[in-house]
Amino acid sequence: MDFQYFIPTKILFGPGKLNELSKVKLPGTKALIVISGGNSMRKYGYLDKVQCLLKENGVQSLVFDKILPNPVLSSVMEGASIAKRECCDFVVGLGGGSSIDAAKSIAVMAINPGNYWDYISGGSGGNKPVSKKALPIVAITTTAGTGTEADPWTVITKEDTNEKIGFGIEDTFPILSIVDPELMTSIPPHLTAYQGFDALFHATEGYIANISTPLSDIFALKSIELISQNLSKAVKNGENITARTNVALANTLSGMVESTSSCTSEHSMEHALSAYHPELPHGAGLIMLCESYYSFFEDKVAEKFIDMAKAMGEDVDSLPEHKRPHSFITALKKLIKNCNVEALKMSDFGIKEDEIPKIAENARNTMGGLFTLDRYTLSLDETIEIIKNAYK
Amino acid sequence: MDFQYFIPTKILFGPGKLNELSKVKLPGTKALIVISGGNSMRKYGYLDKVQCLLKENGVQSLVFDKILPNPVLSSVMEGASIAKRECCDFVVGLGGGSSIDAAKSIAVMAINPGNYWDYISGGSGGNKPVSKKALPIVAITTTAGTGTEADPWTVITKEDTNEKIGFGIEDTFPILSIVDPELMTSIPPHLTAYQGFDALFHATEGYIANISTPLSDIFALKSIELISQNLSKAVKNGENITARTNVALANTLSGMVESTSSCTSEHSMEHALSAYHPELPHGAGLIMLCESYYSFFEDKVAEKFIDMAKAMGEDVDSLPEHKRPHSFITALKKLIKNCNVEALKMSDFGIKEDEIPKIAENARNTMGGLFTLDRYTLSLDETIEIIKNAYK
Ligand SMILES: [Fe+2]
Ligand SMILES: [Fe+2]
Repeated sequence: MDFQYFIPTKILFGPGKLNELSKVKLPGTKALIVISGGNSMRKYGYLDKVQCLLKENGVQSLVFDKILPNPVLSSVMEGASIAKRECCDFVVGLGGGSSIDAAKSIAVMAINPGNYWDYISGGSGGNKPVSKKALPIVAITTTAGTGTEADPWTVITKEDTNEKIGFGIEDTFPILSIVDPELMTSIPPHLTAYQGFDALFHATEGYIANISTPLSDIFALKSIELISQNLSKAVKNGENITARTNVALANTLSGMVESTSSCTSEHSMEHALSAYHPELPHGAGLIMLCESYYSFFEDKVAEKFIDMAKAMGEDVDSLPEHKRPHSFITALKKLIKNCNVEALKMSDFGIKEDEIPKIAENARNTMGGLFTLDRYTLSLDETIEIIKNAYK
Repeated sequence: MDFQYFIPTKILFGPGKLNELSKVKLPGTKALIVISGGNSMRKYGYLDKVQCLLKENGVQSLVFDKILPNPVLSSVMEGASIAKRECCDFVVGLGGGSSIDAAKSIAVMAINPGNYWDYISGGSGGNKPVSKKALPIVAITTTAGTGTEADPWTVITKEDTNEKIGFGIEDTFPILSIVDPELMTSIPPHLTAYQGFDALFHATEGYIANISTPLSDIFALKSIELISQNLSKAVKNGENITARTNVALANTLSGMVESTSSCTSEHSMEHALSAYHPELPHGAGLIMLCESYYSFFEDKVAEKFIDMAKAMGEDVDSLPEHKRPHSFITALKKLIKNCNVEALKMSDFGIKEDEIPKIAENARNTMGGLFTLDRYTLSLDETIEIIKNAYK
């Protein structure tokens, strides 16, 4: 047993916690607030509220509102140049995973020279070390999906080469994250489900990954338990603040799993699906893959499957031993049904069956690293088989 | 549900991890190493090894070796003046809780003006805010008891007034903690037991405290589980590195509980016992109190007792409902027996039965705050009753 634990983010968690932004110690006096190009941060009044609270706290702010659902390199560079020009001394990511991820990358480039891609490892990235300390990052989450508020990771797409690559250093942990479930009540049911399942799979993959640690395990099991007990309630009634709170906590815990363990090849396969079909939401892709993916691994990571099934409330002990690992799949299928996402079909997103070999190869080429974290190393044929079994 | 999470310490955990000191990023180039006035850090070669590894890492070091088992104010001030005079830019606490606690307080006073007691709240402390950022702290633990490597707390005694008061700010979280169970194999059996039970009660008190959070709960239950499965093995064979590792992890987790929840009045009562009888080891005092303390609370925090009993491996579900909470007491008693500490008696430490009212009052006066964190508020009479029932 041998691990490193490092999650330096201060997390303020709970309904109404956003109000503490007016008095919590902040890392500067002029903030660049990074939000999506959509309208929701203004429509729901979140942007106004954040700017007012910052002002009360003696902090000036300006807004950069051009982040796309899959944040792109040019926006990172544009945001960074604004932060530089306006002498911002910290960055606030407000919104879902894309805004917060973009805020992280902007914070790096507001200080460091050259192009963001110079610092990326993999693909056409320059693989240079980051030389200067990034601007401090504050994350204010309005969704419960990516866990980015509790991990250092940011995923940015280079538009011209269509590379979507993750990045993370110690400086890209947020200094402060505010997780206020009241900001999440407006998320529509299907997105609540997609995002919640994304959080779930960050936890389940982190739990079965071969680099899991005792700490990532306790975060993961608690996250799995909370999602299984609460996600369908949040889907069915978005105003159920208890359910929203528990799903938000599960999501933060899954971010802590990302900081202490890792996703596995399920995420590689989904990223490949989404790479060819950008209209496919990440969470929906994972939901369509999961039964096939986990069924393939159930006898290879049997003990861990039993733990996950128990965390999801399955009465595992009453089953004969050889049937116990499969009860995790049973639980997953129940949850999918209860969250009204059992009708998802790859063909509805335009995915053709004969693309699958290409998708499997893409998964292995662009995110091959995660395949090395599975407890059983998949061949290309097995990768194809998993995606084929998920196809309908 | 509403909480703050903040544990910024980087923790390197595992057998052999000390070796990483030669290459991990350190917060300075000249360290003051703080160790106890005893001989063990030299005898076992730990001090030499740490100095060599620091040197390999380009760090000069000098040693301050005057820390008492209950570290005192004058040592803090002396250590701080050496750190100042020698221009040390960080502090290394090497040893058990007392050395690491002292290192934390020295780090504060190496930078801040006046006397350490100016900054203490409670008793004769000056209650001044700390104005300057403390020196960075590195903790290297050689025992598994206080969890101080994963929390901001330090307890220092003012000799002339005999006040023993805790202190902690964000700066007194170690920047880096190395938990290497190989450094713990030389701890004798009885101290292994005392320290292990101290860690256990940090977890159990933090679990039943009224400020527990979902995060402190998962740390606590895992800590309780690990101690119950491993402590007696470490007591019986100190060279059992698996048992030592699991107990060390339980201890680090119990420090994380201290950072996210709190001890309760059990610790107040023990501190009062030790205040009048300084020869009483803290962990031994807790062991003698625990059956009486937890029996008093078993019907008041029934659900949490059931969880703790399950974490300790008790077959709770087979019991009738009203008997389930008590199974935590059953588990505690088994563990005490298995760790060969069931013969501990207050009278053997010179404690007289007629001192008990005075001890109870002292507990409530000097550490009254923890009484407000119990889920049932004890009266003075009930406090006396708990200590009396523990007396033999
Ligand atoms: Fe994901
Ligand atoms: Fe203690």
